[in-house]
Amino acid sequence: MTTRDQAEELDRNDPLRAMRDEFVLPDGVIYLDGNSLGALPKSIPDRIAHVIRHEWGERLVRSWNEAGWWVASRRVARRLAPLLGASADEVAVADSTSVNLFKLLIAGLRLRPDRPVLVAERDAFPSDVYIAGSVAELIGGQLRLIDGPDDLPAALDQRVGVVGAVDVDLNSWGADLAVGCGYKYLNGGPGAPAYAFVAAEHHSRLRTPLPGWHGHAEPFAMSPDYRPAPGIGQLADGTPPMLSLLALEEAVELLAGVSTADLRAKSVGLTTLFVELVTARCPDIEVVTPRDPARRGSQVSLRLPNAFPLVRELIERGVVGDFRAPDIARFGFAPTYLRHVDVWDAVERITDVLTSGDHLTNQPPTQPTVT
Amino acid sequence: MTTRDQAEELDRNDPLRAMRDEFVLPDGVIYLDGNSLGALPKSIPDRIAHVIRHEWGERLVRSWNEAGWWVASRRVARRLAPLLGASADEVAVADSTSVNLFKLLIAGLRLRPDRPVLVAERDAFPSDVYIAGSVAELIGGQLRLIDGPDDLPAALDQRVGVVGAVDVDLNSWGADLAVGCGYKYLNGGPGAPAYAFVAAEHHSRLRTPLPGWHGHAEPFAMSPDYRPAPGIGQLADGTPPMLSLLALEEAVELLAGVSTADLRAKSVGLTTLFVELVTARCPDIEVVTPRDPARRGSQVSLRLPNAFPLVRELIERGVVGDFRAPDIARFGFAPTYLRHVDVWDAVERITDVLTSGDHLTNQPPTQPTVT
Repeated sequence: MTTRDQAEELDRNDPLRAMRDEFVLPDGVIYLDGNSLGALPKSIPDRIAHVIRHEWGERLVRSWNEAGWWVASRRVARRLAPLLGASADEVAVADSTSVNLFKLLIAGLRLRPDRPVLVAERDAFPSDVYIAGSVAELIGGQLRLIDGPDDLPAALDQRVGVVGAVDVDLNSWGADLAVGCGYKYLNGGPGAPAYAFVAAEHHSRLRTPLPGWHGHAEPFAMSPDYRPAPGIGQLADGTPPMLSLLALEEAVELLAGVSTADLRAKSVGLTTLFVELVTARCPDIEVVTPRDPARRGSQVSLRLPNAFPLVRELIERGVVGDFRAPDIARFGFAPTYLRHVDVWDAVERITDVLTSGDHLTNQPPTQPTVT
Repeated sequence: MTTRDQAEELDRNDPLRAMRDEFVLPDGVIYLDGNSLGALPKSIPDRIAHVIRHEWGERLVRSWNEAGWWVASRRVARRLAPLLGASADEVAVADSTSVNLFKLLIAGLRLRPDRPVLVAERDAFPSDVYIAGSVAELIGGQLRLIDGPDDLPAALDQRVGVVGAVDVDLNSWGADLAVGCGYKYLNGGPGAPAYAFVAAEHHSRLRTPLPGWHGHAEPFAMSPDYRPAPGIGQLADGTPPMLSLLALEEAVELLAGVSTADLRAKSVGLTTLFVELVTARCPDIEVVTPRDPARRGSQVSLRLPNAFPLVRELIERGVVGDFRAPDIARFGFAPTYLRHVDVWDAVERITDVLTSGDHLTNQPPTQPTVT
């Protein structure tokens, strides 16, 4: 791979190329931060305007039935399930990722009370580690932190009930429980509700620590006793944030017909191209992300001494990535709306900045957004 | 009070009369269900359209800083606090009511480990009782259920740490903890984020069971250790649902300049008028809600044998209330957008339906929405 023409050729042959037109992408911006906040699906503004003006404004409380608000969470979950390699009744959509992690860690440890140990990566997203620590304290369990996936085999013993935040292939490993986020690659909008997966074999013994009325078998019976909705349904708890949930619905709908194999293949293609171009053109930069595509997701982290001003200068030039202290520039490659030429152009601008030294000429007042 | 003219006179002298113009109210509808889903503030459609199209669509991840998304939850909480009689740093806005109740029950019991007993009303909103039961189980406490406020004194002993879901005057009682909902009288939209109150005196020892990264003292330090944000800040946990949160912001803003004394006085005026008119004109209907205004909120429940078809027929005639099994017709009186003539007209239509017997002529296919 050496020319922009070749990148354009790859885009012409991309089976997902039509998807880009479904998103709002600002002029002049190469958006490499979809791993933080996914781009806006074009259908969302009109959908949410209708939800607000008509369903809420005109029909008011009647929309819980008429407009299907009551079942929206189940509806979105069912559409999302195939993308996760799950059955329709194994996925719930509710709350934030943190709250879902909390629910499933407790539910998981309840499924195996003989195994009260949680294993998590020390350098996992910190929130996940905090939640795991809180759960361990609440139920009298223990949190065992490891340095990385290589330490996992040694950390596993007969007392380990839940392994969290380790990069695994859930499908081929026969996952029991999983949680994930709605606003990154799913493009559901800032703070979109998250999802939770529980394999069907565990449903009969599943017990959530957050027994809210939306997860009740008969919510309108107003019974003083909690009887969980069948299967995954009990993972709904309070009333869901409907505007954010219905924006997520539009975003999931957009992905519902797409082949996950195509998404993964394009993601690997984009990250591989980025790694190869950076390696060839910026030999001083360390690529932190594994070079084996099977061991990475859809983002690439680069380590260099001036990562912070580099990211800042790139944003000025229309290439939006983000920075992780102390020395990581992080770029995400959403296969739904990015092209191979975007990767080519982004590396071109990285090279331009590093060659010019423009990023070193002034100190930024604040750190770029990291979310 | 005997004539519609007198109701109109009350409306002309209503210090809140201008507020009605700030809401979308469908033609021909008297909306007596604001206790379930508040009406739509007129400013919300344009605000949310801007958030979606510009802040999310064009500025993307940069809006976390630029558009103040990161601090939106604190911003809304500070504006909301005076309406609750709380200081700005005693209120958090996050999650659903259920999740906030869960957090504060655990945090409350941690503040008083010598008092592991929760007291709740058996007939409180069931979700609250479920959550209290779950908390008691998780932390090895005990849930003590009472039949009503009259049983409260007898239920209190030295082991009671938290009293939940009993109708109390939080301010004059010197409340320690409280949770509430954003989508009823606050008009934040379906499933709007909820709020949590913790009195300042408890902040130094406050410990949430949901230590998410938005509640960390330095979220971008990505520290493996959880250090709670000062004060109420730790009650933020995961990333908030931004569309729903910013709709709530508009709704709270609308109320921010309003006198709570005026709101309460008008609420009492509306409910008193309703109770008096129903008592005078429909003597067979039992008014379940206390006649002493000091003992009721902004809703009135009527018990009658055919409550269900009555509510259904009233909805057909533009008076939206709701039904609670087995025999309660429930009406809410939002002081922000209802007029005294609306109360007069609603009772007129109730009387018309009962006199005509129209509600008994056909059986409804489904129960009216109850949320």
